Amino acid sequence: MPALFRYRQLANVFAQQITQGLLRPGDRLPSVRQVSREQQVSLTTVFQAYYLLEADGLIQARPQSGYYVQAARTPPGLLPTPSRPAMALHDVSVTQTLLGLAQSWNRPGLIDLAVAVPSLALLPQAALTKSLLAAVRALPDSGLSYPAMTGNASLRRQIAQRASQWGNAISADEVIVTNGCMEALVLAVKAVTKPHDVVAVESPTYHGILRALEGMGLRVYELPTDTSTGPELPALEQALQTTSIKAVVLTTTFSNPTGACMPAEHKQALVELLARHEIPLIEDDVYGDLHFSGVRPVTCKAFDRQGLVMLCSSLSKTLAPGYRVGWVLAGRFHAAVLAQKMMHSGRSGALNQAAAADFLSSGRYAKSLPRLRAALRQQVAAYREVVRAHFPAGTRVSNPQGGLVLWVELPPAYSAMELLRQAADAGIIFYPGTVFTTQELYGNCLRLACGQPLEPQIAQALQALGKLVMGQAKGDLPAKSKVDTARLN
Amino acid sequence: MPALFRYRQLANVFAQQITQGLLRPGDRLPSVRQVSREQQVSLTTVFQAYYLLEADGLIQARPQSGYYVQAARTPPGLLPTPSRPAMALHDVSVTQTLLGLAQSWNRPGLIDLAVAVPSLALLPQAALTKSLLAAVRALPDSGLSYPAMTGNASLRRQIAQRASQWGNAISADEVIVTNGCMEALVLAVKAVTKPHDVVAVESPTYHGILRALEGMGLRVYELPTDTSTGPELPALEQALQTTSIKAVVLTTTFSNPTGACMPAEHKQALVELLARHEIPLIEDDVYGDLHFSGVRPVTCKAFDRQGLVMLCSSLSKTLAPGYRVGWVLAGRFHAAVLAQKMMHSGRSGALNQAAAADFLSSGRYAKSLPRLRAALRQQVAAYREVVRAHFPAGTRVSNPQGGLVLWVELPPAYSAMELLRQAADAGIIFYPGTVFTTQELYGNCLRLACGQPLEPQIAQALQALGKLVMGQAKGDLPAKSKVDTARLN
Repeated sequence: MPALFRYRQLANVFAQQITQGLLRPGDRLPSVRQVSREQQVSLTTVFQAYYLLEADGLIQARPQSGYYVQAARTPPGLLPTPSRPAMALHDVSVTQTLLGLAQSWNRPGLIDLAVAVPSLALLPQAALTKSLLAAVRALPDSGLSYPAMTGNASLRRQIAQRASQWGNAISADEVIVTNGCMEALVLAVKAVTKPHDVVAVESPTYHGILRALEGMGLRVYELPTDTSTGPELPALEQALQTTSIKAVVLTTTFSNPTGACMPAEHKQALVELLARHEIPLIEDDVYGDLHFSGVRPVTCKAFDRQGLVMLCSSLSKTLAPGYRVGWVLAGRFHAAVLAQKMMHSGRSGALNQAAAADFLSSGRYAKSLPRLRAALRQQVAAYREVVRAHFPAGTRVSNPQGGLVLWVELPPAYSAMELLRQAADAGIIFYPGTVFTTQELYGNCLRLACGQPLEPQIAQALQALGKLVMGQAKGDLPAKSKVDTARLN
Repeated sequence: MPALFRYRQLANVFAQQITQGLLRPGDRLPSVRQVSREQQVSLTTVFQAYYLLEADGLIQARPQSGYYVQAARTPPGLLPTPSRPAMALHDVSVTQTLLGLAQSWNRPGLIDLAVAVPSLALLPQAALTKSLLAAVRALPDSGLSYPAMTGNASLRRQIAQRASQWGNAISADEVIVTNGCMEALVLAVKAVTKPHDVVAVESPTYHGILRALEGMGLRVYELPTDTSTGPELPALEQALQTTSIKAVVLTTTFSNPTGACMPAEHKQALVELLARHEIPLIEDDVYGDLHFSGVRPVTCKAFDRQGLVMLCSSLSKTLAPGYRVGWVLAGRFHAAVLAQKMMHSGRSGALNQAAAADFLSSGRYAKSLPRLRAALRQQVAAYREVVRAHFPAGTRVSNPQGGLVLWVELPPAYSAMELLRQAADAGIIFYPGTVFTTQELYGNCLRLACGQPLEPQIAQALQALGKLVMGQAKGDLPAKSKVDTARLN
């Protein structure tokens, strides 16, 4: 891999121009096409550079118009530090903790900053129900009969079409419909591992993935990870040489909890690296459609020439969590994944699949996304501002360019689990950082889901969290540190 | 256990009276209550005795009236022989065979005697769709949001109420809703086993259960099994003493493929035996509502005092296969099963659960069952008659008192797999016996699903099967043997 990726060089050039005043607040940056032509780089590289500048608060996209230098630059503030997990294998044991949390959260009236789904108000409820009714009318069996093991044929065509938009041509025959993205991930991992095998993941990694790996009796190798650009590939390359890793599981676009989006070059390099080692990549793309900028980040699957990438996704974050419609594009492992599906849960619900097929094929899905993205972009930014204003000095907050979660890193002396105990008493819940790792890490971190609009009671809840953090009596709190402006270079 | 169960002694008494002409064709038998009072036995024991007489073609139930001596006794013919599997542990490897079959069956126009579901025409399609629409209207979120991990609260109450009707009081809190019965079984088994553990099953056993056990990397101990009364408990008792068996998985009522229904006394004895050994029973009750006689057979769960029985069931055989609504009542393993659900596939679809809840609570489910049972009873009998008339002499056919499958045992020299190859070419499919075992057994057996009404093309297909069997050129076919009338005594 090159010492500095092309997109980062390019971002640095623009950042310098902005810092030096060559580009001034309100100035429009050259169009992506123009930069691509002039610099002889791909469109993706330019987009990636602009993403990076945006994540750092230097520029801002305006819909239908282009990228502009921020009028009054809002410094992004401290971003979470890159993770440095121990280079060692660990068993997973998060499920009991999660069950305990779930139980204590089983009461009404809680302000839920834990579950990462968009507010119902942001989802196209009426339009989807129209599709459901249309599907019920159109199905001769009203959805009573078993669907095919691989899923509804029309839905599979729609999924294949969407997946083909940003890379490899995918055929409907490659799609297996699942009971949400979670089942997709489980079947994909099962297809290529045995109990006690080792799987590499980013660190921190989504607790749902960890508990799935725990369920399969797998061991985990956590990779050092940057909260903007995802797992560090040189570390993975080294791990592949020293450890018998059977599969890599990554949320490559808007990872959960960090929000990191692997740049296209990283994705391509990752696919090539794993191809050399003949190791499958299970790619969780469940947040891929929730990009805040105008362009949908590419998937690793788009670079896959060997059939080694299994792309898993669902409609749970973008359309209907309760529908449990997910899928996997399993490449060369298609038959193995289908066998796992036969062995584990069998066919998925017919009606939800048919409704989703109608919703996608009618164009309603594509039409519904921009509003959702705009709302989430605004919400994530708003939550972020409240946290920055009300949490202790030295608090670091991720600046995701998609998805709907924030990763908050308190100064080291604070305990997020202690905060959760007090917050839950006050009726506010979130996930503490410790459930996103198999190691003794992230005790001072928390994940905030930003799915609800920032209404007064949510804002008050965030402020209350800040107050509770401040109240943790610690002697060794760090002094208020200066805003980190060095990250770009 | 007693040498001869009380219900069997009682059945023998009546059988003798019939054979000796004390009870004559058309005579009404004393009511169940009367016999119970006079003989000082439980109602269940009398029902069980009457079941047995009915299975042997000696008596017949008439709805709302009682039991009558068969006008012209239809002898049940040869019943399949009790199984005698090797008393040894076996790995499971049926999934590749099943995948191969599924692939070759993936073409339109086949006459499907393989998939065990009732014909769509027998299911209450319009009424269920009414419930679906009512549920969509009643849900503030139209089913878009995540339901609770344990499932829809109203559905869980309905399931608990039904389960409480025939024994133990069950509370809604004990119910976990799953993605069909298959997921229920997988989660229940996973909760109490680790890979390479040994699980005891009846023999033959449902291929879906075998492939699930294969998926979990478990080894299997097959129990000798009677095709009327299920697994032989002395053999299980012996196995428990010699082998470290971690769980027992049985379809206790109308097993698949044999149709065997464990008598209530066997069920009770089984629960007591396993309680002494502290071994969990995973009870597949998916066919329990499909009884041909007036009374629903009791479950093992009804005898469970230790919380060791995990009852698994679904609405897939009685209401809507495509809805994928199943459940598990996991007793003392509730938390462990819930943890497995969190690790494996997560929440189940909201809409289908709400529709099912409405259908059950409105009383439509209870109202829909008698018609379905009557139709299946008639279909199973009709299929049976065609097989008896058109298959070679010496063919044995199960005589199930519920469910919707027939187990056909050809004379030993015949091959069901060879028959399937020829039949599939002719557009007819069924499951060969070899997929119901981990051993080299049942090569001369097949399972016929009787879900479709016996219309002319189905009758012709069954006759064509008979012709194909007859055509298998074998030198050593047994002579036409006499009807087996000795089974009752």
